[in-house]
Amino acid sequence: MTTVTSHIDDLRIDSQRLWQSLMTLASIGATPKGGVARLALTDLDRQGRDLVVQWAREAGMQVTVDRIGNIFMRRPGRDPRRPPVMTGSHIDTQPTGGKFDGNYGVLAGLEVVRTLNDHGIQTDAPIEVAVWTNEEGSRFVPVMMGSGVFAGAFSLEHAYAATDTHGRSVREELERIGYMGEEEPGEHPMGAYFEAHIEQGPVLEDAGITIGVVQGVLGIRWFDCVVRGMEAHAGPTPMGLRRDALQVATQLMQEVVATALRHAPHGRGTVGMVHVHPNSRNVIPGEVRFSIDLRNHTDESVEQMAQEVRDCARSLSARTGLPIELTLVSSFTAQQFHPQCTQAVERAARLLGHSHMRVVSGAGHDAVYAARRAPAGMIFIPCKDGISHNEVEDALPEHVSAGCNVLLHAMLSHCEGVTGPASAPL
Amino acid sequence: MTTVTSHIDDLRIDSQRLWQSLMTLASIGATPKGGVARLALTDLDRQGRDLVVQWAREAGMQVTVDRIGNIFMRRPGRDPRRPPVMTGSHIDTQPTGGKFDGNYGVLAGLEVVRTLNDHGIQTDAPIEVAVWTNEEGSRFVPVMMGSGVFAGAFSLEHAYAATDTHGRSVREELERIGYMGEEEPGEHPMGAYFEAHIEQGPVLEDAGITIGVVQGVLGIRWFDCVVRGMEAHAGPTPMGLRRDALQVATQLMQEVVATALRHAPHGRGTVGMVHVHPNSRNVIPGEVRFSIDLRNHTDESVEQMAQEVRDCARSLSARTGLPIELTLVSSFTAQQFHPQCTQAVERAARLLGHSHMRVVSGAGHDAVYAARRAPAGMIFIPCKDGISHNEVEDALPEHVSAGCNVLLHAMLSHCEGVTGPASAPL
Repeated sequence: MTTVTSHIDDLRIDSQRLWQSLMTLASIGATPKGGVARLALTDLDRQGRDLVVQWAREAGMQVTVDRIGNIFMRRPGRDPRRPPVMTGSHIDTQPTGGKFDGNYGVLAGLEVVRTLNDHGIQTDAPIEVAVWTNEEGSRFVPVMMGSGVFAGAFSLEHAYAATDTHGRSVREELERIGYMGEEEPGEHPMGAYFEAHIEQGPVLEDAGITIGVVQGVLGIRWFDCVVRGMEAHAGPTPMGLRRDALQVATQLMQEVVATALRHAPHGRGTVGMVHVHPNSRNVIPGEVRFSIDLRNHTDESVEQMAQEVRDCARSLSARTGLPIELTLVSSFTAQQFHPQCTQAVERAARLLGHSHMRVVSGAGHDAVYAARRAPAGMIFIPCKDGISHNEVEDALPEHVSAGCNVLLHAMLSHCEGVTGPASAPL
Repeated sequence: MTTVTSHIDDLRIDSQRLWQSLMTLASIGATPKGGVARLALTDLDRQGRDLVVQWAREAGMQVTVDRIGNIFMRRPGRDPRRPPVMTGSHIDTQPTGGKFDGNYGVLAGLEVVRTLNDHGIQTDAPIEVAVWTNEEGSRFVPVMMGSGVFAGAFSLEHAYAATDTHGRSVREELERIGYMGEEEPGEHPMGAYFEAHIEQGPVLEDAGITIGVVQGVLGIRWFDCVVRGMEAHAGPTPMGLRRDALQVATQLMQEVVATALRHAPHGRGTVGMVHVHPNSRNVIPGEVRFSIDLRNHTDESVEQMAQEVRDCARSLSARTGLPIELTLVSSFTAQQFHPQCTQAVERAARLLGHSHMRVVSGAGHDAVYAARRAPAGMIFIPCKDGISHNEVEDALPEHVSAGCNVLLHAMLSHCEGVTGPASAPL
């Protein structure tokens, strides 16, 4: 089917077809509560991959798989030497995942290709849709495994050796489900990379904005903290003779939030996990262990936050005499997206008349690793109540459609020589 | 054996015999780490009771048991119509209990009687040593069960119905171990009550003082607190859009300590138990539950502390929009000891030349309930590092001896007509 569009700028995706594809893919691993449980490299993951690959072939795409199971689905361009303009995401989910996280980015890419096919549009650069292996990391760590190996963030052997709780390795599971490809990861060419994703946060919904133009992904520092006091009976121990680990720990917990507020607007500080020992109503806590999660948009700023928390711990410890141990357990560098790509997303949103704003991503995405290989950018759409990694994860059809149209036009702006039957110049 | 003592004031207990009795009783239920596990109404409790009753009979005492298993061991006075001057404590322990908690009060009483026997001292009022049933409350609740029923704090039927984790009731266990007596609890006469006990806190040791003259027992209010927020990803949720339950909870936790400091010297505030949901490193806590333990020396002052915590919760909730639920789960009234008794303890300490100070008891004791039936008082001795309810619980022989001598002279000062072979007037 070829539909004549008077001008490339008027090109629009088929919202209903995209929504239907999302719902069909969501039926593989569907949970009773409306979510999806399709963990990486399981039989369900294979079924999901098979379906997406089948759809890609039906759309005339060529399929390549690399040695970490990343799938590249190619719509050829006029000039095969040009590196492809790529999009993509992942189709593995959390154990209590939703229909949109990852799946949206892959199927929006497929819908872009279907739309170009419908309208007989040709491009100089090829267009590709990637399905990255194991983004979620719930079955195998590290997270963002496929794109991480692709970007050289860690080695193929390291990824292969990862095992699930039953002792099954990534290597054997890749072979078992038939997605151990032959291409060396990272050898696949990439000219630019765009990824559409639900926001997984509340900013767009709160602001009533349709499109988030993602400028970058926050850097992260994870610490484990231990405050050691002396457990004692709550009754017979007067305040002056206590070494109350919780009383000291709560002051540091407040500093975690205070430092984030001082580093507005992108600073974030969270204490998510707390363990109190012995955790008994009438015993003064002898030990408190808790986690600290600090994020900010540059590595310098997140490092500065970490320093402020360390300084506070040092002075608290000096003042109270209680030892405080802070251990850095993980560190993710901040990633700025390429101005070419963010501008392309912004222009596309403007062209389409969608409200848009610049945002940062607080969570990691495959685009972070892709950005190490080529100019990259992301498009966020709102998700209901900012909730994801949950079976109630939801998004409005009009936002799903809007994000895909933005993806279409952002990608086309990078393809050069875009021509359709109406020969409309870009 | 009768030893002639020139003056009643010169009378001293046999420190070595007392220590030996403590060690012998501690062998029943001894744990590898040097503690004692002799839970209420178990076979070990029966063996302990049997041994103490045997020692009492050997000391010429008459033994009565009431229907809640409280044992009263009587050394007759000249005037059988006078109510006895009583002492006592308990011999049940925590699962990881020590040698001194409770046991010291019972065996110090027995040592007082043995000392009077040794010296042929007669008293007008009888002297009695009580062994109260289930003070610890670790197998059956409520705690201080025997003295509580004795004082009418709760009914015999209520106590009988209490069951352990295996479903065995107090009534059947009392019958099984042969300590279901016939006397109606509370009908036993009592003229005055003294109890010697390890402090179970660090005050005396810290001050380098031998004898604590206990003025009263702190009133207690126990609350459960729930702060409800909204769990969300730590990454994608900016500070301004968070409903972080822990961030609010930690402010209230600090107020618990602050209110205690404002109510010095006896105010105590403890958060001992904390549960964070979902307790995951990168999820903003959606719910925090924690316990609040407030204590002070009068009911008015502890009520005032509770009010300050409630006020803080209300204003925190108004300011943050997060619901905070405070539920009173237990309330123990403060108990002042009788000036006659505290003065008798103070005089005895002065007579014996022991350093002494007025203290309060932060924990409950059988003396609290006894005080509802007769003038009562307590004598504290230091315990190592303030630790009890622990197998490492320890006390110095000289302190054990000093406390028993204070008990002896405090009791004698209440007995009237105390005469010995030397006919020394009191």
